[in-house]
Amino acid sequence: MILLPKDISELEKSALSWLHKRGVELEDIAELVFYLQAKYFKDLTMEDCRFNVERVLKKREVQHAILTGIQLDVLAEQNKLAAPIQDIIYRDENMYGIDEVIALSIVNVYGSIGFTSYGYIDKQKPGILKKLNDHESGSVHTFLDDIVGAIAAAASSRLAHSFAGDIPEVTIKSKETDGEKEE
Amino acid sequence: MILLPKDISELEKSALSWLHKRGVELEDIAELVFYLQAKYFKDLTMEDCRFNVERVLKKREVQHAILTGIQLDVLAEQNKLAAPIQDIIYRDENMYGIDEVIALSIVNVYGSIGFTSYGYIDKQKPGILKKLNDHESGSVHTFLDDIVGAIAAAASSRLAHSFAGDIPEVTIKSKETDGEKEE
Amino acid sequence: MILLPKDISELEKSALSWLHKRGVELEDIAELVFYLQAKYFKDLTMEDCRFNVERVLKKREVQHAILTGIQLDVLAEQNKLAAPIQDIIYRDENMYGIDEVIALSIVNVYGSIGFTSYGYIDKQKPGILKKLNDHESGSVHTFLDDIVGAIAAAASSRLAHSFAGDIPEVTIKSKETDGEKEE
Amino acid sequence: MILLPKDISELEKSALSWLHKRGVELEDIAELVFYLQAKYFKDLTMEDCRFNVERVLKKREVQHAILTGIQLDVLAEQNKLAAPIQDIIYRDENMYGIDEVIALSIVNVYGSIGFTSYGYIDKQKPGILKKLNDHESGSVHTFLDDIVGAIAAAASSRLAHSFAGDIPEVTIKSKETDGEKEE
Repeated sequence: MILLPKDISELEKSALSWLHKRGVELEDIAELVFYLQAKYFKDLTMEDCRFNVERVLKKREVQHAILTGIQLDVLAEQNKLAAPIQDIIYRDENMYGIDEVIALSIVNVYGSIGFTSYGYIDKQKPGILKKLNDHESGSVHTFLDDIVGAIAAAASSRLAHSFAGDIPEVTIKSKETDGEKEE
Repeated sequence: MILLPKDISELEKSALSWLHKRGVELEDIAELVFYLQAKYFKDLTMEDCRFNVERVLKKREVQHAILTGIQLDVLAEQNKLAAPIQDIIYRDENMYGIDEVIALSIVNVYGSIGFTSYGYIDKQKPGILKKLNDHESGSVHTFLDDIVGAIAAAASSRLAHSFAGDIPEVTIKSKETDGEKEE
Repeated sequence: MILLPKDISELEKSALSWLHKRGVELEDIAELVFYLQAKYFKDLTMEDCRFNVERVLKKREVQHAILTGIQLDVLAEQNKLAAPIQDIIYRDENMYGIDEVIALSIVNVYGSIGFTSYGYIDKQKPGILKKLNDHESGSVHTFLDDIVGAIAAAASSRLAHSFAGDIPEVTIKSKETDGEKEE
Repeated sequence: MILLPKDISELEKSALSWLHKRGVELEDIAELVFYLQAKYFKDLTMEDCRFNVERVLKKREVQHAILTGIQLDVLAEQNKLAAPIQDIIYRDENMYGIDEVIALSIVNVYGSIGFTSYGYIDKQKPGILKKLNDHESGSVHTFLDDIVGAIAAAASSRLAHSFAGDIPEVTIKSKETDGEKEE
């Protein structure tokens, strides 16, 4: 079961629910943010990280990217795509870059400073990213691993903006998310 | 029937064949290039335009974008995607931007000078773009129309590079495409 | 003289002030938004347009793009760049794409749905864009014209998000901008 | 002294010459490519790496990015930019993302598969990247370090395309570069 905030669009609900179904919890993504940012912000808490992940997930562009990418993963898993794209996505072929293209559109929403974070965790594959990539389970996560990394990178950018004073809330505000809408 | 060049990868063959099945001929895209570039290059021929379209289509990134986008269009047409993305893609919802994201990855391959051409024909919808957008036939072309516009924009950039001397061939070389590979 | 809101960072103040010095008022950009969006939203007012432009200008990424681009324009105007980039920027050479690259980073902040608006007004050059492009005055606006078009495209995306309910304010809220910060 | 190939445009000559003046040799960038790719391609030689770097540097978009970025670095070093952008670039402020934006336009030329390589070496800072980042010398390399990383990432993508058969040459062809032009 996942607890969903009250004031949430159907689209966001669907995106969160699909992340959950595919084995990704907000906590997993928050851990990636912590992994990326703990060295820069001394008092960083997991609550800060989770709050920023939640806010990134409120963006419609991000929800669209999640739903489209997971859809392709699921169809490849069920062998329902046409050749040759079925095989390319199923095997997560290394010359295929549409997963990175969609992921980068998530990063872009919080500006270019997240590009390097995205590339870094994609290579390092900490936490949930390692799990999504082990290819042992018969699951296909060609798009999802890049999308999760991108959400973490975007949340890291958002966090940096917060600490720079660009966005007021963070930390305490995390209790009051419900009624807020995206900017 | 489409005549395919001899020296062509399976991936390219598949991309060209899907374009054809979905109602887009190379000639249609060449016409978009002519529409975009005739005012800048006086002696521009349709042969030049077609040649540059062919070269853009030799890029693996472009082939991946075509195959992924058309796959999503076809599945939406067959009502095989999960809600809510099924409905979003089926209706070509105007807040959905993954089609533009994938299209822009095509434009990028020949540099940023193609961005404006892409945006321009997407609004003007000359030739084949109008046809793909009439939504009357029950066909879904949410991705394809953006992809076709992006190929035309990329071919326009490539053309401009050719005329600037960055690429030697053009015109006469169009007879010798077969043996060439992408750069 | 330009009237500046009270609660505004030094960076934003500087960006707004440079726009003004280079001949661009917020009203000019608001008119571009109106030009782009009036056909889609019947009750659209110039106040809505201006409000969304103001909100786009609160983004740090946008401020950085403005300041960097105008800096290069000004230095080219003063003949202070080194060859060959001096000449390339001075003449607004059509193969030079760094201006588009920087402009697109502005559009990206509000998602991919603004790409086509950006390309469209860049070709059509309504209002202030025509003025910035006439090259008669000895002024160099190689970067500025793309940046202004990109701000208008981003504001158009933001407007569409507002009307889709992603952002609560618009119209009435335009009186209360001062205390708000970017999201 | 740097040895320049015979058949080379003025623009390329200028870009290579500026890289050299700012302390970056082609060999340094080739080493970054080797660092990124040696684990994937067993027989990879430094000659392969260098060849791919050379080919990336033949792209006009890349030359423009190099010349524009270095120009801003040099002017910041000479304290010739206007406040506040002078200070932002001089200190390589971490919220400033125009350097990443320009760098990413280099990566894009060889497709999205280079995004992660770019992010990875930017965080790891092997070889020349560490040197460019030590900020001890009074030199400003805010743009250059990102540009060098991006060239290495693009050359890595090109290398992967070569090994996948997309581009014929590599290795032996490195002797024959002179007469070739960009694709």
